[in-house]
Amino acid sequence: MQEYIKADPWSIIEEGFDKELVKSSESIFSIGNGAMGQRANFEENYTGDTFQGSYIAGVYYPDKTRVGWWKNGYPEYFAKVLNAPNWIGVEVFVNGEPLDLNTCKKVIGFSRELNMKEGWYKRQFKAVLPNDVKISVKVTRFLSIDLDEVGAINYEIIPENGDVEIKFVPYLDSGITNEDSNWDDKFWNTTSVTSEGNKAFIEAHTMKTNFETCTFMESRLFVDGKVIENNPTEQKDELRIAHEYVQTVKQGETVALHKFGGYTVARNHKALVEASTKALKKAVDFGFDALLDKQKQAWAKIWEMSDITIQGDVKAQQGIRFNIFQLNQTYLGKDSRLNIGPKGFTGEKYGGSTYWDTEAYCIPFYMATKDQNVARSLLKYRYNHLDKAIENAQKLGFSNGAALYPMVTMNGEECHNEWEITFEEIHRNGAIAFAIFNYYRFTGDYSYIPEMGLEVLIGIARFWHQRASFSADKNKYVILGVTGPNEYENNVNNNWYTNYLAKWCIDFAVEQLQKVDDGYNEDYLRVIGKTKLTDNEVSQWEKVANNMYFPYSEDKKVFLQQDGFLDKELITVSDLPKAQRPINQKWSWDRILRSPYIKQADVLQGFYFFEDHFSEEELEKHFDFYEPFTVHESSLSPCVHSIQAAKLNRMQQAYTFYLRTSRLDLDDYNKEVEEGLHITSMAGTWMSIVEGFGGMRVVDDKLSFEPKIPEQWEAYSFKINFRDRILKVTVKKDSTELLLTGQEDMSIRLKGERIVLQPNTVKVV
Amino acid sequence: MQEYIKADPWSIIEEGFDKELVKSSESIFSIGNGAMGQRANFEENYTGDTFQGSYIAGVYYPDKTRVGWWKNGYPEYFAKVLNAPNWIGVEVFVNGEPLDLNTCKKVIGFSRELNMKEGWYKRQFKAVLPNDVKISVKVTRFLSIDLDEVGAINYEIIPENGDVEIKFVPYLDSGITNEDSNWDDKFWNTTSVTSEGNKAFIEAHTMKTNFETCTFMESRLFVDGKVIENNPTEQKDELRIAHEYVQTVKQGETVALHKFGGYTVARNHKALVEASTKALKKAVDFGFDALLDKQKQAWAKIWEMSDITIQGDVKAQQGIRFNIFQLNQTYLGKDSRLNIGPKGFTGEKYGGSTYWDTEAYCIPFYMATKDQNVARSLLKYRYNHLDKAIENAQKLGFSNGAALYPMVTMNGEECHNEWEITFEEIHRNGAIAFAIFNYYRFTGDYSYIPEMGLEVLIGIARFWHQRASFSADKNKYVILGVTGPNEYENNVNNNWYTNYLAKWCIDFAVEQLQKVDDGYNEDYLRVIGKTKLTDNEVSQWEKVANNMYFPYSEDKKVFLQQDGFLDKELITVSDLPKAQRPINQKWSWDRILRSPYIKQADVLQGFYFFEDHFSEEELEKHFDFYEPFTVHESSLSPCVHSIQAAKLNRMQQAYTFYLRTSRLDLDDYNKEVEEGLHITSMAGTWMSIVEGFGGMRVVDDKLSFEPKIPEQWEAYSFKINFRDRILKVTVKKDSTELLLTGQEDMSIRLKGERIVLQPNTVKVV
Repeated sequence: MQEYIKADPWSIIEEGFDKELVKSSESIFSIGNGAMGQRANFEENYTGDTFQGSYIAGVYYPDKTRVGWWKNGYPEYFAKVLNAPNWIGVEVFVNGEPLDLNTCKKVIGFSRELNMKEGWYKRQFKAVLPNDVKISVKVTRFLSIDLDEVGAINYEIIPENGDVEIKFVPYLDSGITNEDSNWDDKFWNTTSVTSEGNKAFIEAHTMKTNFETCTFMESRLFVDGKVIENNPTEQKDELRIAHEYVQTVKQGETVALHKFGGYTVARNHKALVEASTKALKKAVDFGFDALLDKQKQAWAKIWEMSDITIQGDVKAQQGIRFNIFQLNQTYLGKDSRLNIGPKGFTGEKYGGSTYWDTEAYCIPFYMATKDQNVARSLLKYRYNHLDKAIENAQKLGFSNGAALYPMVTMNGEECHNEWEITFEEIHRNGAIAFAIFNYYRFTGDYSYIPEMGLEVLIGIARFWHQRASFSADKNKYVILGVTGPNEYENNVNNNWYTNYLAKWCIDFAVEQLQKVDDGYNEDYLRVIGKTKLTDNEVSQWEKVANNMYFPYSEDKKVFLQQDGFLDKELITVSDLPKAQRPINQKWSWDRILRSPYIKQADVLQGFYFFEDHFSEEELEKHFDFYEPFTVHESSLSPCVHSIQAAKLNRMQQAYTFYLRTSRLDLDDYNKEVEEGLHITSMAGTWMSIVEGFGGMRVVDDKLSFEPKIPEQWEAYSFKINFRDRILKVTVKKDSTELLLTGQEDMSIRLKGERIVLQPNTVKVV
Repeated sequence: MQEYIKADPWSIIEEGFDKELVKSSESIFSIGNGAMGQRANFEENYTGDTFQGSYIAGVYYPDKTRVGWWKNGYPEYFAKVLNAPNWIGVEVFVNGEPLDLNTCKKVIGFSRELNMKEGWYKRQFKAVLPNDVKISVKVTRFLSIDLDEVGAINYEIIPENGDVEIKFVPYLDSGITNEDSNWDDKFWNTTSVTSEGNKAFIEAHTMKTNFETCTFMESRLFVDGKVIENNPTEQKDELRIAHEYVQTVKQGETVALHKFGGYTVARNHKALVEASTKALKKAVDFGFDALLDKQKQAWAKIWEMSDITIQGDVKAQQGIRFNIFQLNQTYLGKDSRLNIGPKGFTGEKYGGSTYWDTEAYCIPFYMATKDQNVARSLLKYRYNHLDKAIENAQKLGFSNGAALYPMVTMNGEECHNEWEITFEEIHRNGAIAFAIFNYYRFTGDYSYIPEMGLEVLIGIARFWHQRASFSADKNKYVILGVTGPNEYENNVNNNWYTNYLAKWCIDFAVEQLQKVDDGYNEDYLRVIGKTKLTDNEVSQWEKVANNMYFPYSEDKKVFLQQDGFLDKELITVSDLPKAQRPINQKWSWDRILRSPYIKQADVLQGFYFFEDHFSEEELEKHFDFYEPFTVHESSLSPCVHSIQAAKLNRMQQAYTFYLRTSRLDLDDYNKEVEEGLHITSMAGTWMSIVEGFGGMRVVDDKLSFEPKIPEQWEAYSFKINFRDRILKVTVKKDSTELLLTGQEDMSIRLKGERIVLQPNTVKVV
């Protein structure tokens, strides 16, 4: 852990300049607007240690795969999150001396603030340069939610010890590199570098994928708020264009450069320079301040629906808002061609944009805090990739339209390549089916299933049917050689979670076939025609589902994570010396594999998905058996455990897990925040409040709550968009307040009691 | 399969020029002398597809490891078999036109011969060049066994359609590359390129490992056998030196270039150019023909002891001689710093020189066909690496002197990095202990154990003791997360072979501790002092060995390859469509893993090592259970099965396996011979005749035989050096002839009967 962020309910604040923390802060102070995002790199040159990153949604590069020994079926390419041309750069010279925080004689009063309420990032400091000039600097930056191709920077300098000449050199640069490149290949091809007055453009396309982009900028110089008309001098080379603005500034005067910049992409426009010019015109016409006002309004609107308040615990409050803020920065649900990358726009690690995290963790958050179309878009994303999933399964020897969704993808193709994950972590397929169920359960919108979902469910059921095999020894169907959600086990037999999910997927698909046949016969006929599904095939599926094997210990009365789990040396995590942890940094892989230690919920993930299939006693038994072996070394682990601990009334444990999930990056629990943030697990944080403490479920088309409150908190509140009705739930120490908006009554359950809410009236229970 | 090699009892012969076969033939016609070796690359330039390779024993390069996702414990370097500077090159120009078999108008009567009896390689052809000149070419090459730093080439040309000007340009070149390089790094640093008259030298050392070498050459020109005194013109650049010899030759005259060349290394000399000059002088003083005569004598001596004759089956005869020839080309046992690489001097694949192949397969061959010091050298090689094996185990979390020998090594350090092999294929440790037992059983030389072996056995026993863990569920010790010899299973629990070997290793170590204490007390005290072994620790070992778990099926009455084996779909290989094979080329890795298919003997490898622990009925039961699932996609598989089939009197099956092992490379069963030969498995071919058909065992310090003969053969013979007594065994259709050399009688067993042999008298039974 590394705790240097100041507690504050609405802002992330760093005070003091520590070169060792620059890369961590670059991650934590990242900004994004769903269409693009960037690490909190300094605008001016910085010669210290930094990880430069600016990312455009949907623009990736299929890097040549790097493996040790090649295995049949590996993809040839591994999609990389691609560092895009830099538009934020502003070189600053003071009397000819470059401003560089790494070489300044003194840096005084350095602070950063990420204002989550209003959606902007500010950095200020005073610096004494090597030439002894002292200046005061304040830089504000944001990526516009309204004009989502544009970002804006206000770079202000006040000379503190005499008049000085300030030279601002805003630039665009496509000569950038990727940290996460396999073979140091070149990723971008720059085709034009042009400049016109205060504007400049770089057109570049990615190699191989040929994503065309235009990076643009336009700047204005101000002294004490008055614009200086100034035709900048141009610096230009093959990959870079810069404008020089030179101004003599008196001591105490404020010189400011307003820089607007960003990207247009061929996904949205034909003529990119033209589109960029238009985007710039809009932004410049507003001006920095008006655009910032719009930004504040846009974020107010996002918070209006998605905010969670916590009273009496500012760190917990800051944590949840940081998570909600980052999720919204990453994905706003406007485009079904996009998804939620595990690092969002904050780093490159893991590559690919889409994991099962989206279905298992993110969809509940987006369903409840946005219009239902956002979740539908995420489901449709997978429908659009169905053909690729069928192709992917074919590469692994499956046939007849069996679909295996990739472990990691950008465009539907698999781009991960470790056999134990790529080929064996097949439970991901189940999460995709589960999300269809979950979407329908929450929204009540069945239409997705006949229109698109049924085809996905058929492909997935076919996969499980083919993937299971019959064990004559057990007289049951088994699923051999898999990796479960707990990636600290590889190539195990009969992972309970996988087997359970496989059976459920088949059962659910069969049920939907019947429902669609009954209620949407035209869709049914279209799908049956397309998939050539026969009754005989369906009864083969059912044979597998009805005879699936589930490892179980009669002695312990628990389902076993996999065959042979009880052969392990069952030493609990609490008995493990601290020096041995985290085991993924301290132990060799074989030692991890043969240990009982669990990276993230595995059997318990099944209990989370299918809670109502099991009694609370069963949950307790399994929680008590597995949690003591769980090291929570995946960011996706604490949230599920927090929810289950809350359900079991273990509020202290639930609270500890909550803090761990909500402040994972802010307090750098896993010592890796400099690589970027854990975006997808942030949705888990939301779940641990709403589903954990709030006990929210959907039961029989109705919202249900079992509110509980950690003793550290005075109150907390959250809002749910349930079938276009907005319900605000405020949980206090000894009461729950419910406020419904809209016109009609709504019936809910609270602690098992049915309650009818009238709109616009606070109901206190 | 690809059968183009002509059957011949003593030679490997290719007839006709096929560009598609050049790389395969480069492997098959490889030559070596234990100190160096090379692929059968053409001397003259060849612009077609070729795999250039010349290798020096003990000279390797620690290439930077290449993996996908890094795992703790991986070595940083992966030793590579290193292509050494080229000394065989001779450019040939005919009236200024370069001779290049890829561009000739016609190539007539092309043939290659590898004369195994005499140890030389010859290539001849007639060629019509683009300039319509027709020449006849004969090139003979060998690497001297006597002067093992030197090779010799006799490059003869006869003009066939007129007088021509021939220019020979013999050269040395250190600007070579490695096929098997991870990052295209430079491996060699050339420090001097010098020339003096007909001699030239390139001094170069390897990067990182700094192995200093000198590559040298000296040439002489002859016309019709008469030497032409000729001061060649020199061509020189930074990495290459060449000499030009120009000669006008009349139609029908023979012009010949005799080129001597090779390597000296700092392991053997201080001043390398001086040592090279001396080596050249010796070779040139002999001249090509006299040196070739010595070569024939040297090989006659090798064959005298190691030849196996087969009458009535020329392909089988050719196969076994090819195997014996290649083994002797690879390793002659002169230097305990060297070992037997899986591809010898014929390719680069796999990297590293030492695998468990040496202990499990090669030692029996070298023990029986060489002086016992050769096998002792191979054991000592591991003793010398004990500290590194302890270090290797420490990296994986073991302590207290536990030793894990590496999967692949050059210098004792692990240089393999796939977790499922590197960390988990730990049975290799057992093979190293078994070889100590086997050496003593065969040679009767106990001295190795108190002197060196005991320390190795203690390190290995400590490893197994720590690696096993207690299963409360089974109330037994288990070994979780291993890969057995059958690498088509990864990360399995309780691989029977591994568990059995682990128990045996501990039992054997405990037994030797007692024996050394009793008979070699000084050694005992030294070893106990060094290893700090206590009685208490030993009793902990014994607890593990005495309570080891062995998976067994009561139903099938067989030991199970691993836990859960019977859950697989047990479809035999014969029911697998041919188009699906080899499965390692047709199936994705997960599909292979969950199948029952066995790459090479696994349970049966245990039955091979510990044959006398099991009854013949048990062997039969296990053979019948496992062989039908065995795909033999490892070169090490057919030999063990051939031996066991012979033991079970299944002679047709034994013969089929024999052909597969003996002609694996000659007939390119696995379609990969162009990568190099399978050297270590060639020792298995020898075993399948001597131990399989001949039924040779050592029982109670005596040789024992159960001779059988495949119906395809009229007779076969082999020789055994048993404790410095040479016994020749000739097996005929209905009798066995035994001929002992030396002075004293020797008692043996033949088909269970005790027989006393008198020296120098053929005994017919």
